[in-house]
Amino acid sequence: MSLAAAVHIQSLTASNFSTVYNLFSLVIASMLFTAIYLLASQRRVAPRYRNAIVISAVVCGIAAYHYFRIFNNFEATYPAGATVDSAHQISNVVFNEAYRYVDWLLTVPLLLIETVAVMSLSRGESRSLLFKLVPAAAVMIGLGYPGEEASSTGGRLLWGGLSTLAFVFIVYVMYTELARSVVNQPAEVQPLIKRLRLALVVLWCAYPIAFLFPVFGGSFFGGEGGFVLRQAGYSIADILAKAAFGLVIYQIARIRSGLEDPAFELGHGDAPVSAPRSATRAA
Amino acid sequence: MSLAAAVHIQSLTASNFSTVYNLFSLVIASMLFTAIYLLASQRRVAPRYRNAIVISAVVCGIAAYHYFRIFNNFEATYPAGATVDSAHQISNVVFNEAYRYVDWLLTVPLLLIETVAVMSLSRGESRSLLFKLVPAAAVMIGLGYPGEEASSTGGRLLWGGLSTLAFVFIVYVMYTELARSVVNQPAEVQPLIKRLRLALVVLWCAYPIAFLFPVFGGSFFGGEGGFVLRQAGYSIADILAKAAFGLVIYQIARIRSGLEDPAFELGHGDAPVSAPRSATRAA
Repeated sequence: MSLAAAVHIQSLTASNFSTVYNLFSLVIASMLFTAIYLLASQRRVAPRYRNAIVISAVVCGIAAYHYFRIFNNFEATYPAGATVDSAHQISNVVFNEAYRYVDWLLTVPLLLIETVAVMSLSRGESRSLLFKLVPAAAVMIGLGYPGEEASSTGGRLLWGGLSTLAFVFIVYVMYTELARSVVNQPAEVQPLIKRLRLALVVLWCAYPIAFLFPVFGGSFFGGEGGFVLRQAGYSIADILAKAAFGLVIYQIARIRSGLEDPAFELGHGDAPVSAPRSATRAA
Repeated sequence: MSLAAAVHIQSLTASNFSTVYNLFSLVIASMLFTAIYLLASQRRVAPRYRNAIVISAVVCGIAAYHYFRIFNNFEATYPAGATVDSAHQISNVVFNEAYRYVDWLLTVPLLLIETVAVMSLSRGESRSLLFKLVPAAAVMIGLGYPGEEASSTGGRLLWGGLSTLAFVFIVYVMYTELARSVVNQPAEVQPLIKRLRLALVVLWCAYPIAFLFPVFGGSFFGGEGGFVLRQAGYSIADILAKAAFGLVIYQIARIRSGLEDPAFELGHGDAPVSAPRSATRAA
């Protein structure tokens, strides 16, 4: 895309480099193994919830892939200096923020789908809800990217502001739908749905805040400090909004499975694979 | 993090380099294939134990990921010298001890969860136990890292000592809970629970001892010898405390599955997958 070039941070201290580097590695490990855990555990929820669990796993898997890329890219952009304690100067390789936006373009719609899947809506209601939310997510991310790459504060604020309109719409709709859904949920699940609702508002707000760090300007936020904080903010928010969020979805699916089918009672797990076997066991 | 730089070992002999390098490779092979074995075998235990087995697999998988990183990092930090017999001089790439701490931050809580899962506690008891242990594990690891990176013996001892308080708390609680749990276990399982209890105390103590090697000082422990011993200590302790430990958890789950449900009797294995087969066996 022929956007104005972003402001590039010229150099990172050895300790700032290590902090970002280790956080990226933590995200890879968290996402990859949450994906594996969810895939390996899908049979511990009733069949009707398995799609939500597999989608949660896919979200974490896509994020793990992008963080592998981001990790390698970060190493190439800021190679080691003369000694282990030297600053890491920028190389000729650009630090590609687009990985994050491509990741979000794929994972945010999937996160919306997995959340709607545990809301106990009718099929028609789910469809009409996603019909509004998924395009809004594409608009939100599509408008955010030029802001991330803008070379001026004005550009960052303009694109960021437009993106925020879609963001507010999505968070508002999801919040009210989750609130409406709470009353239709079994009592055991209500606290978890409330936690999802809170996570959605608190965690998602971490993204626009991290986006804004460079706008705060000054020697800290305008430079290396703002870069490190932004990467840290996106990384931690991604772990919570994808991996931790996916595990809460899994919890909800486990509890509802147990309530709806005794074969999935908590502490048990897998469904009987065939009806006669469960009949035999029950006998 | 703006910690004082750790003491970097400037050079390793070819044989010391090989020892550490081969140990790291051994850890990767042990962890990766224990993870695959456990994932592939989860259906050989009764449903209620599968979560513990999948978590054991995830622990080994996370460790395999980190040892891949440690292995590559070690090669980059100490590249080959002029000839095959030359010493390996430190390069400009730092040997990143943080990989271990990020690994432990993720795996120690999971190890506690998998252990509590085979203790036959009620759901409430398990939760309240983990509610104490998991934060203690985070504190233990969070305080240990600055000690590992400290440039002075005083710093290493101070952070290490604080970390040890949390360590002693966890080991004490787990030891007494495992001891309490023995009496509620079937006779067939009791020796294995006792082995877990012993493993917990003996293996976990390897970590603070390895941590202390540089403190012993002198030309051996203060330099290359201490570095090699510390890496060897952490590596072997990790294999035993994660892979071997996970296999004992699996054994316990297998035996208990067989005692609770004839479909999982030892020597059999997978549950019958179709009704006629199980009907035939039941007849």
